[in-house]
Amino acid sequence: MQSPRRGAALPLALKEGFAYTEHYFQQTLDHFNVGNITLFPQRYLLHNASWSGGASGAPIFVYCGNEGDIVWFAENTGFMFDIAPLFGALLVFPEHRFYGKSQPFGGQNGPKELAFCSAEQALADFATLILDLKRNLSAQASPVVVFGGSYGGMLAAWFRLKYPHIAIGALASSAPILQFENIVPYTTYYDIVSNAFKREGEECFEIIRNSWTAITEAAEQQNGLRNLSQDFHMCSDFKNADELINWLESAYSYLAMANYPYAANFTMPLPAYPVRKVCQAMVNSPVASSILQRIYAGVNVYYNFTGAAKCFDLDDDPHGLSGWNWQSCTEMVMPMSSNSSTSMYPPFEWDGEAWSRFCWEKYGAIPRPSWVTTEFGGHDIKSALRNFGSNIVFSNGLLDPWSGGRQAMNDSFRLRSSLIDFDGAHHLDFRWSRKDDPQWLIEQRELEVREIKRWLSEYHSLHRQNVFVI
Amino acid sequence: MQSPRRGAALPLALKEGFAYTEHYFQQTLDHFNVGNITLFPQRYLLHNASWSGGASGAPIFVYCGNEGDIVWFAENTGFMFDIAPLFGALLVFPEHRFYGKSQPFGGQNGPKELAFCSAEQALADFATLILDLKRNLSAQASPVVVFGGSYGGMLAAWFRLKYPHIAIGALASSAPILQFENIVPYTTYYDIVSNAFKREGEECFEIIRNSWTAITEAAEQQNGLRNLSQDFHMCSDFKNADELINWLESAYSYLAMANYPYAANFTMPLPAYPVRKVCQAMVNSPVASSILQRIYAGVNVYYNFTGAAKCFDLDDDPHGLSGWNWQSCTEMVMPMSSNSSTSMYPPFEWDGEAWSRFCWEKYGAIPRPSWVTTEFGGHDIKSALRNFGSNIVFSNGLLDPWSGGRQAMNDSFRLRSSLIDFDGAHHLDFRWSRKDDPQWLIEQRELEVREIKRWLSEYHSLHRQNVFVI
Repeated sequence: MQSPRRGAALPLALKEGFAYTEHYFQQTLDHFNVGNITLFPQRYLLHNASWSGGASGAPIFVYCGNEGDIVWFAENTGFMFDIAPLFGALLVFPEHRFYGKSQPFGGQNGPKELAFCSAEQALADFATLILDLKRNLSAQASPVVVFGGSYGGMLAAWFRLKYPHIAIGALASSAPILQFENIVPYTTYYDIVSNAFKREGEECFEIIRNSWTAITEAAEQQNGLRNLSQDFHMCSDFKNADELINWLESAYSYLAMANYPYAANFTMPLPAYPVRKVCQAMVNSPVASSILQRIYAGVNVYYNFTGAAKCFDLDDDPHGLSGWNWQSCTEMVMPMSSNSSTSMYPPFEWDGEAWSRFCWEKYGAIPRPSWVTTEFGGHDIKSALRNFGSNIVFSNGLLDPWSGGRQAMNDSFRLRSSLIDFDGAHHLDFRWSRKDDPQWLIEQRELEVREIKRWLSEYHSLHRQNVFVI
Repeated sequence: MQSPRRGAALPLALKEGFAYTEHYFQQTLDHFNVGNITLFPQRYLLHNASWSGGASGAPIFVYCGNEGDIVWFAENTGFMFDIAPLFGALLVFPEHRFYGKSQPFGGQNGPKELAFCSAEQALADFATLILDLKRNLSAQASPVVVFGGSYGGMLAAWFRLKYPHIAIGALASSAPILQFENIVPYTTYYDIVSNAFKREGEECFEIIRNSWTAITEAAEQQNGLRNLSQDFHMCSDFKNADELINWLESAYSYLAMANYPYAANFTMPLPAYPVRKVCQAMVNSPVASSILQRIYAGVNVYYNFTGAAKCFDLDDDPHGLSGWNWQSCTEMVMPMSSNSSTSMYPPFEWDGEAWSRFCWEKYGAIPRPSWVTTEFGGHDIKSALRNFGSNIVFSNGLLDPWSGGRQAMNDSFRLRSSLIDFDGAHHLDFRWSRKDDPQWLIEQRELEVREIKRWLSEYHSLHRQNVFVI
């Protein structure tokens, strides 16, 4: 076990004027196995520059850490820092167990250790930490609002559903809570990625769609893999064509997610509207360019926008996202397929059995594809959540490939929660505000702030009432 | 692991005309440890004589099995059998893991095995079993209502709160969900037991209150324990006075719970209004009777109403309730104390540290007294559950010592759930109907039936709407 590092609390700055401190909490390793008394140090960040204090009843805003280093998520969730002064709010960023520095087993994670890495344990971590913090800060009267983007958004929404006694509301940005079993069509995700490219011109879409055969054919030539590795400036040779194909697929997918209207650094430093830039690089290559040269020209914008990379590595994981493989081999099974008529990706079917074999070989794990819907729901969400699920804002960028589940939710939350679409990419609304933010993004964020204000005022008015009535 | 016994399905009768079949389901041992792929056979009972079938959308009523053999609970929940024909309902009685025949480790339970025995795992068992049954019976359109009494009532209420996508409503009878931490005064439970005796006359109350000193003094005499053992007709000698004291305390407590208006067999075969009978036996003993003779005369009504017992054993546990010790040493920590001015019990303070020491010595377990309120809530329940917790009926017999938490709930559920009091004992409303049922009990049950009808009609109207709107 990693040793606790208490009392560090060095103020660190995310951005000028936005300091946070780093702390560790002795967290229960297994909340649901009541005989397990092991603890581990869970990291969390605090930003208290704006906080009006527990006695004032000022709120606590908690970001539900997801599958990576929590500092990275804090950096990419400037929205919370931007609005903290409006509410006098305390910001808390608990890290998700098994990511970043929250390593119950010091980062030595085999299947036996990763067994403790699940959404349910992470939610219980948040609950336990929040209540402990409230006690320690004498902030029992402070209402809690949870935030989260992507998987963190799923956690935020589920937290409000499972722990309504702790969080009075949730902002879930780009949270694909319906991407399970057969709730949304398997093709949805790749269709949305593809549409983001098609929006920039049919030609771009077609170059990518036709590239897969070109790659396979090139790989089959003599010295094909070596030549491909050189053409794509890899630091070491591809072992097979699939390595290149996966590397490209991943780039397109992240490009669609990070298709922000300004230069940003989410997974990579990228220009404004990066999908457009990638397509332009592909389409505007010299006329004589081969299809593979066009692909390289495009993907180079994604993997090497700064021009700093001399060559590329396949296994780069600067944000420590690899734990997600385990999660998707256990409970986070999101079935997907690619349809040749609507997607630019190589066509493939969802093969649950092949996935199970892969997970069994890799981890000795058996995926539980229906567990998430058993534990959190999803099917028939319109009626199931009719009397529940209040005070949740589901915001979705329509350009975001993870927005596919939103349609199935439409209507359902109309009464008690909100579903807000905007014309942007993966949790764009959660990023720092900027002078060049488009008007619709400013309005989207205002709307979210209004919702939070409404929840807080309901909470306080109920509490004031209690003072007189009882 | 116990071997699965599938296909048994022998029809067994609880009572004339009320047959059920016994089944086993391959249940996940650890729902929250996603790397654990062990299964165990969970027993459940089915009563389908009234069921209109899945295609009709007829409901499924599920009893949330609690800390004992599920057949015993089914026998004591005749209400469900009585109302099944009104709804064309299927009845399902899943057994709680580690009780009855649902023994993941064949009944060989040390702390390592009992680690899997918790309310969260039990709730997830119910969720998993219900969804599997619905699939297998093609009953996806059948709404589910959960029922439970006592700890089972807590499970039913928590199931509705945590799994609203699976159960449309819950009937929680005598469910002390607020008996945790300091939500209700520690003295509440024993005060209510004491009041049940005081209601039958101050003299009865005083005999019991004065008996503890008499016992301690008698035990301190030469051969005191042997004499006491003979006076109380024990099969073997008491090792100390506390054994006798605990044995009596337990009898009074169960008597208050089982203080039904007619002869019944809940924990023991008992006469109608057994508290009254016990008090009469104590008070009406020959004038010359010593206080201990009076106590014996009373407790004999409880432990030996049928007259069949030649002598008494301290460790009788015919319903297999011993697993509760583990649960109360881990998450089910219900702090209690006894106040000398309001209680007939020997005065004592709640000593959390002593409890921890006991649990550590017995099981190597560290109690988690704030875990239940973290996971399920409880504090400030009025505002926390304002927008949640719909469609739950909390019914409480005011004679029932477990009804102490109800006051703290009052008002809170007024909008979205109901709190119904009646003048009876521990989940009296869930028992078989009888010709001699008092009018208020008939009305209580009618009220519960009306609530279920309302939930079902809301559910069906929403589903019909969906057919046209979408």
